[in-house]
Amino acid sequence: MSDQAETTSRRRRRREGGGASAPARVTNYRQLKNPFPAVPAVSEDRVEAIHQTALRVLEELGVKVLLPEARALFKSAGARVDEASEMVFLGRDMVEAALASAPRSFRLHGATRERDLQMELGTLSFQSGAGAPNVTDRLRGRRPGALSDVIELTKIVQHFDAIQMLSPGVEPQDVDVSLRHYAFTHTQLTLSDKIPFVFSRGTPQALDCFEMLRDFRGLSDEDFLTQPHCYTIINTNSPRQIDIPMAQGLIDFARHGQPAIVTPFCLMGAMAPVTVAGAVTLSHAEAMAAITLTQLARPGAPVMYGAFASNVDMKSGAPAFGTPEQVKASLLSGQMARHLGLPWRNAAGCAANVNDAQAAHETQMSLWGAVLAGATVVIHAAGWIEGGLSVSMEKLITDMEAVQVIAELCSGTPADDADIAWDALAEVQPGGHFFGCAHTMERYATAFYEPLVADWSNFGTFTERGSRDANTRATDVWQKIVEDHQPPACATPDRVAALDAFIARRTAEGGAPPVS
Amino acid sequence: MSDQAETTSRRRRRREGGGASAPARVTNYRQLKNPFPAVPAVSEDRVEAIHQTALRVLEELGVKVLLPEARALFKSAGARVDEASEMVFLGRDMVEAALASAPRSFRLHGATRERDLQMELGTLSFQSGAGAPNVTDRLRGRRPGALSDVIELTKIVQHFDAIQMLSPGVEPQDVDVSLRHYAFTHTQLTLSDKIPFVFSRGTPQALDCFEMLRDFRGLSDEDFLTQPHCYTIINTNSPRQIDIPMAQGLIDFARHGQPAIVTPFCLMGAMAPVTVAGAVTLSHAEAMAAITLTQLARPGAPVMYGAFASNVDMKSGAPAFGTPEQVKASLLSGQMARHLGLPWRNAAGCAANVNDAQAAHETQMSLWGAVLAGATVVIHAAGWIEGGLSVSMEKLITDMEAVQVIAELCSGTPADDADIAWDALAEVQPGGHFFGCAHTMERYATAFYEPLVADWSNFGTFTERGSRDANTRATDVWQKIVEDHQPPACATPDRVAALDAFIARRTAEGGAPPVS
Repeated sequence: MSDQAETTSRRRRRREGGGASAPARVTNYRQLKNPFPAVPAVSEDRVEAIHQTALRVLEELGVKVLLPEARALFKSAGARVDEASEMVFLGRDMVEAALASAPRSFRLHGATRERDLQMELGTLSFQSGAGAPNVTDRLRGRRPGALSDVIELTKIVQHFDAIQMLSPGVEPQDVDVSLRHYAFTHTQLTLSDKIPFVFSRGTPQALDCFEMLRDFRGLSDEDFLTQPHCYTIINTNSPRQIDIPMAQGLIDFARHGQPAIVTPFCLMGAMAPVTVAGAVTLSHAEAMAAITLTQLARPGAPVMYGAFASNVDMKSGAPAFGTPEQVKASLLSGQMARHLGLPWRNAAGCAANVNDAQAAHETQMSLWGAVLAGATVVIHAAGWIEGGLSVSMEKLITDMEAVQVIAELCSGTPADDADIAWDALAEVQPGGHFFGCAHTMERYATAFYEPLVADWSNFGTFTERGSRDANTRATDVWQKIVEDHQPPACATPDRVAALDAFIARRTAEGGAPPVS
Repeated sequence: MSDQAETTSRRRRRREGGGASAPARVTNYRQLKNPFPAVPAVSEDRVEAIHQTALRVLEELGVKVLLPEARALFKSAGARVDEASEMVFLGRDMVEAALASAPRSFRLHGATRERDLQMELGTLSFQSGAGAPNVTDRLRGRRPGALSDVIELTKIVQHFDAIQMLSPGVEPQDVDVSLRHYAFTHTQLTLSDKIPFVFSRGTPQALDCFEMLRDFRGLSDEDFLTQPHCYTIINTNSPRQIDIPMAQGLIDFARHGQPAIVTPFCLMGAMAPVTVAGAVTLSHAEAMAAITLTQLARPGAPVMYGAFASNVDMKSGAPAFGTPEQVKASLLSGQMARHLGLPWRNAAGCAANVNDAQAAHETQMSLWGAVLAGATVVIHAAGWIEGGLSVSMEKLITDMEAVQVIAELCSGTPADDADIAWDALAEVQPGGHFFGCAHTMERYATAFYEPLVADWSNFGTFTERGSRDANTRATDVWQKIVEDHQPPACATPDRVAALDAFIARRTAEGGAPPVS
């Protein structure tokens, strides 16, 4: 593992006062590099066979593209298009040209340079569980997501440096769909300085969000168009279909210089072949089709490859996560991403219904799958439950322990002569202990990771304290984080007022209905 | 990941009837090869620096050896020995000669060749949680371990092919210490065909166990002495001390051709330096001293390197597991083992008090640490809880899900042309699904890992069924395994009768008190 610079947090520490009142332990989870060698699933000749088969899928079988503007873009670049069936057949020359023009590396800008992320193979970032219709916690139970939940989740995510990007945690269903993007963007910009997410629900909403973001960040049009400041997620409709808002999002984001993360969601045996290799072939074909569209809309536009493949329970059809098949698909998808040379997104996952041992095992297993696959961004790393039908506040906390441990592993293992500790080894006699030796006294306050929610007390103490399990303790943790939240420095009164005024005006004008 | 042969289980399947009544899915978790590249923690020059410092520890600081026979062995080989302080100072020539004579690879024999394990760098096996004074389950609560618990745990471990070796799960405290080794060995031999564990509690008990094992396996003295058929675990008393039974075990096992797994238990900040590098240096020195003793007792004797290092909570002194420091120490220990070229043991761990999300996260995090460190044997992979003060029957089951997923990952990812599934991709139209296509129908029954305890039903079904969490469901699983247990084929009535007779005779003679 490489020894990663801690300069960012050291600078921050000094700025925040430093010296005697400084926090005991300095961590830097903000800009991680993956310390693990990427693990291959198959030999290189099979990677090439999958890539060639995927190109053949695009050329011979085609992709159904529901948006006329997208079909026109494909056609003008030389694709064979059948308007009656809405099928687009992409020649490999066109696909290869698009893959060549997509940037291998680009910088995603947060509100400060310390929140920026370089998107390229080898960097590592995490997102919390996203896209859930429901939210659940121990205090209020399971319920449809509301704006108040988005606000709480944003405060929690803002707290954790090891979650570097905002994601669409739960859907705020108490806000009208024509106004929801205002509330969602307002929440992200005023409560966090991290990289925001923008939904692809039609051009009017996307343009609204771009405008809010540009002005809140104090950017010129030119700045915004030439620097990525947000991202969207594009899910294809597997197999082989790209719907209207998704195609529109690919075009709009590319034209505005903002990255789409293309992520086919391929459930083996359901919307994808039952084999890992077959599912990844389909996913790879769909991702290449979507990436091609971004490059036709604007050559050189930032875009990310993505893959989220797992299996279903063939008895019930229920999706499963944390399975060997998901891990294998992640490792294979990583090979495909490296074959293209593009930064890419992968996912953890969890099908459990409560935050129990199954939930923890599934999320951590798939988290390791994504990390060992060399993913640039790992979504659903914390809080995702019920196969994505809910986000659990408590699970967000207990999963963050695993994410933080992995972030710690990015910092390397110091092993200079002082770490090898000859003097301490010579000082402590056989049968003695190191608690009081000089080497320990100099380091004990900062030597070890401090747990977020783990309770290391013995069974007697644990019992005396009421036998409160991790899920119960997690409630205390997220409540305190929500209570302690402070708006980020970027949320100046002027900018918040301007944002409020924009939203009031657009609301009075009727907002922007989603396109579908 | 290499594609591992499934011949063993296929043979077994045919033998057990094959054809129409054969199990739907063939797995082989018996003789695993680690598919993951070993992850280094530090650069090679720091590995060498740690190795040189550890040699200097042995040479200049010495090790306290409480057994006179062991000191005499060291002295006769040229070590400087101070009898008054019981200190032994090992020159590096002696240590290097011992490391050169220790075998890089040896075969551990089970009752059948399918249960054999090759111990060498690159192979991978798991042991369940071991060494606990207490046992806990949902039905009977937490209690001191009894022989009935050893029996149940042995039946559960025998059930799982992904646990390849028996381990001393809980201490049967209802059996007199002079007779306990009979009851423990009887349980292992009659209920399992896997590689048994033998305690190092003095020569008389070890010789009793060797005799029971030799006769039960139908071996000659020569067979037994030239083939490893069991193993023991030797924990040094960190820092720098080897007590009487441990030193005796190292000598006795080496002389009888049976392997000791040498495992210093180094808690950073307590019995070891507060730094990862310092703790591993101490652990490495102690392991080399113990390995040297085995080679002095019998050059070429099978022996394994081992490491189990984690940190303590510096506020309370409580041991912690699943921490970044444990993972880093595991990765670094793997480098030290590869530096010596010896097979080695590492450990998972868990400090939680109940089988909750913390418990699962800690065990799986440390399990990945051990697997990525390239450990040959991973102990405490399932069921270990409370930092080893208890084994949980339910946690054994929920952890086994993670162990089995990792075992599945050893089998590789098929990616031939049929797996890539061109025909299926061409058959299913955009917006369609793969449930009914020929490619799926041919494979659906065997395509996916079948979960042990995971429940993938949706929230509604889960709730209707009583919201039974993984811990609750695990009770059903272990109860059924215990109920369904069948004695292995090796436990013939003749051999069981002979074993019973031996134990009756030795019991009448007073048994064998442990040595301390």
